[in-house]
Formats: sequence, C-alpha cells, structure tokens
Amino acid sequence: MERSERMKLFMDLTKVKSGKKVCLKDLETGWAQSEEAKFIGKGALKEQANKLFDVNRAELAKAQEFLYASHTWSILIILQGMDASGKDSAIKHVLSGVNPQGCRVTSFKQPSLMELDHDFMWRQTVALPEKGMIGIFNRSYYEEVLIVKVHQTLLEKQNLPIKKFDKKFWENRYQDISNYERYLSRNGTFILKFFLNISKDEQKKRLLARLNNSDKHWKFSESDLKERDHWDQYVAAYEDMLTCTSTKWAPWFVIPADYKWVARLLIADIITTSIYQLNLKYPEVSQQKHDAIEDAKKMLSSE
Amino acid sequence: MERSERMKLFMDLTKVKSGKKVCLKDLETGWAQSEEAKFIGKGALKEQANKLFDVNRAELAKAQEFLYASHTWSILIILQGMDASGKDSAIKHVLSGVNPQGCRVTSFKQPSLMELDHDFMWRQTVALPEKGMIGIFNRSYYEEVLIVKVHQTLLEKQNLPIKKFDKKFWENRYQDISNYERYLSRNGTFILKFFLNISKDEQKKRLLARLNNSDKHWKFSESDLKERDHWDQYVAAYEDMLTCTSTKWAPWFVIPADYKWVARLLIADIITTSIYQLNLKYPEVSQQKHDAIEDAKKMLSSE
Repeated sequence: MERSERMKLFMDLTKVKSGKKVCLKDLETGWAQSEEAKFIGKGALKEQANKLFDVNRAELAKAQEFLYASHTWSILIILQGMDASGKDSAIKHVLSGVNPQGCRVTSFKQPSLMELDHDFMWRQTVALPEKGMIGIFNRSYYEEVLIVKVHQTLLEKQNLPIKKFDKKFWENRYQDISNYERYLSRNGTFILKFFLNISKDEQKKRLLARLNNSDKHWKFSESDLKERDHWDQYVAAYEDMLTCTSTKWAPWFVIPADYKWVARLLIADIITTSIYQLNLKYPEVSQQKHDAIEDAKKMLSSE
Repeated sequence: MERSERMKLFMDLTKVKSGKKVCLKDLETGWAQSEEAKFIGKGALKEQANKLFDVNRAELAKAQEFLYASHTWSILIILQGMDASGKDSAIKHVLSGVNPQGCRVTSFKQPSLMELDHDFMWRQTVALPEKGMIGIFNRSYYEEVLIVKVHQTLLEKQNLPIKKFDKKFWENRYQDISNYERYLSRNGTFILKFFLNISKDEQKKRLLARLNNSDKHWKFSESDLKERDHWDQYVAAYEDMLTCTSTKWAPWFVIPADYKWVARLLIADIITTSIYQLNLKYPEVSQQKHDAIEDAKKMLSSE
C-alpha cells in the first residue's frame, strides 16, 4: 500500500473531525480483530505491520533531517491515554531511530509549587520544541481537563481568580487550549495529538502483568489502581476533550491501543506522513553563497 | 575481549590523568594505523569494531534503564572538538539506540544577549540532566576557554567586572569549572568529557567533502573556514583545557577521531563501561510495598 493510500485509510480511521462528537464506546480499541485482520490472519497482519513500521522509522529519520535543514517548522507530538495505555513504549519504539539531537521528550508529572504558580500551560510552553526539532510531550496541559476534571480538588492548588468550576469553566479551558494551539501552529509549530485508546480489560491485563513482574515492582505506587476506579469519569473527560479540542490545526487521533504493534504502526505512519506533507526541502543556496563555496574550495585545495 | 580488559585498554589509551600535561602532537588521531591495526588489517579491525559497537549500543540501552530505575545519578556527556571532528555524527550513532525519553541532547551555539547577561556556565546549568537521565552537551561552557580564549574580543560582550584577561584570568576559569564539576559530581551528576581529536589534514578532507556535496551547501557559513586559520591557537587552548580540567570526578578522554568508526566505538564503550561501574540496580522494594502489591493483585483479579 502506498503512503498516499495509507494516509487516507489510517487518517480516516483515527482522526477526530473538528466539531464531531466523540463517543469512545463506538471506537475500536483492538483493530487486530477487524474484518481485514480476520481475513488475512492476525500473525500475517502483525508481520506486515512490523515491516511497514520499519519503513516508517527509516523514513521518519530522513524526514527529521529535512525538518532540521528547512528550519521553518517544529513538530509537537502530544500523547495522552489511561495508565498502561502504552505511551512510554510508543515513544521508545517510534522515536528511537530518530537522531537524538533532533528530538526531545518531556514527561509531565505532578506539577511543582513553582509550576502551579503559573498559568496552566506555562510549563509546557517552556518545553516547546525549537524550529527544526521534534518535541514529544508524554502527557501535557491536557491533564488539566482530564485528571484535574476528575479530581476537582486539584484546582484549589492553582489559586485561580475564578472559584466556580462549572460547565463554562471547562469550556473556557478547551477554548484557551485550542486558541493557544492555533497561535503556535500559525507560528510554525505543527501539532499532532494521539489518544491511546485501550479497553478496561486490556488495562487490567497490563496492570496484572506489571504486578507479576518483580523487575517492575519498584515502579508500583498505590495510586496506580485508584485511578482505575474512576474509569467512567475519565472516559467522559476524554470524550469532551476529543470533541472540543480536535481542530484543523491540531487534530486528535484516536489510536486503537490494545495491540502495541497496531498502535506503534499507526503513530509512526501518521507522524511520518504528516511531516512529508509539509513538503520540506533543503534551503535554496543563493548565488552569493554559491560563489563563497567555490572560493572556499579553491582556498582549501591550494593549501 | 571482555569489558574489564577493554576498559583498561581503552581508558588507558584515552583518559587524561589528572595533573598530566597534555601535548596533542604526541597523541594519535588515527589509531587505525596503529601496530595492532597493521597486524590485523584495517578491514578486519573495522569489522570487529563495528560488532563491538553494536554490543555496546545494546548494553547502553539496558544501562540507561537501570540508570532511570535507580534514580540516583544522572550522566552528563560533554563533546568538544574542532569543526568537522564528528561531534554530531558521534551523537547520532552512539545514542540513537537509547530510549529518547531517557536522553536529552543540547547543542550550544553563539550565546544570546540574555545568556550573556548571566555567568558563563548559566545556560548549561539550566540544561543539566535530571536524575535518571543521560544529558549530552554538544559543545559546552568549555567554549569559554576555547573560542573565547582564541578570540578574546568576545569577552567584551560578557560585561565582566574584571577587565584584565591575563594568565590568572584563564586559570581562574579552569578552577571555577573544575570546582563546579566537583559539586555536580558530589550531588549525583556523573561527568564524562570527550575531546574528538582530528588531524588538520583530516579536517581539510571533511570540509572539502562538505563543499562538494550540494545537499550540504545550505549548512555552509563563511566563518567555517576562518577558524581553521587559528588551528595552532586552538591546539594550545585545547592542551591547556585538557591539562587543567581533567579531574578524577570529571575526566577528559582524548578520542582519536580521524576514523569515525574508531571514535564511535571508543565513546560508546567508555560511556557504557562507566555506567556499568556505577553498579546500578533496581531499587529494593520494602515489605510494606510488597504487601500493597499483593493486595493490588488480589483486588484486580477478583474484579
């Protein structure tokens, strides 16, 4: 399948159209159980997917060189998803072939007191990628309409002038985020946002697998399971977020994430295709520079 | 050859012993022309080196996981070297297998006016790696005793209280740097510094190759050749820097860099060996946490 065909297929399958109301229970978390998968067979499909993934990784490395050379755009990739949805693993696999000099990952954990004394997008602003760079946000200011919406007592720590956290308050947050992203995009930040969509069953499997692997016990925190109790509230928050902040300039992609090889392939392909669509080229060399290059050659050769 | 033997060999060959006066013309830039290389044959040696390099890359990826888990040390890697000595290429090849989430590269170019209004190590301080991370500085505050020493008019822009730039001034800079690195090291930053040592002939070859590759013409700047005219002054500045700032807590390694496969192998091996020497382990899990894990397993399984 050519990139142009895949683009149509993968983007159509995953992109949230601006203004469309998202209902997560209508969206597949598996995809490997799709009709196509049944027809080809899961093993064969996985093999194909992994081959395509390797192609994408190589092309992404190349695309990053053009991005750097043309020095007009930066790429901002935002990853969100429930615990154990595979955000870390996606970053590791999709981006580990890219030149580390052109790519920077920032993971946003619980904000510090200093960070809380700024506006809610400040700490991400400081970490935005420069022109030529790929920046990856592992979680982001979207936590401000996810965990903060599910646990509204967190807002108390933010010392906001507004004290009424009603529907309008959240609508304003969505609006502020979308407007900010439009400003960034107008000034050369190309934004792609991925929601890793796993089922509650798959999360259970993964959490149990972690608990049964003693090499991962140091990572365990009692809060890991607590958020699972709020599953339905999170689903509602994700749906509102996807519905209200998927825009032309910063679209959300809902990635079926129950199979890591499916998620990785889709993310790698969408990133690579999107960068190629920017039609990046090496900058043109002026006549003056060309002459200087010829002079330099002569000078060096005659040393 | 085992890691322990290689460590002795590679470190002995390249590490600048604290207090030892460095004379660059006594140090090989080639290494592939060594007696050993002549005996084995360059092709065979290169093949061996590349195999070992792959082993190191895989082990470095593993070592980075332990580094992250144990959360006590960060690794700071500083790369310095003449133009075209292979700094970018070393970063790309040595680190592109490492999880991008655990590794951050910062390239320091000409300082901004805001940066010049701070002390000379401020902008690097802001970019230091957090615990668990590998930070790579492509150039660093060492430029302050290299390009700034060769072109002392640059000091005027720094608005320093001192206006006399004599021997003592530079000795103070070396001392300040060494003391600062000792402080960092005492607090968990493990520092490795690599000087990529190329010959003037090899630089000529590489600059000419760049000038003859039209895909790289956009990168060309007329200043590229100007610094080459100051070669001997740079050599003197590098020698003083290596002599005065190679310490037990932050050693310099002089890497023969005329062959990129030699340089990459040595850098990858020294970084990997050094991290292994820290004897990092997964953190121990307390009885209390262990109990909580058992409870969590039961809770999830009975859902």
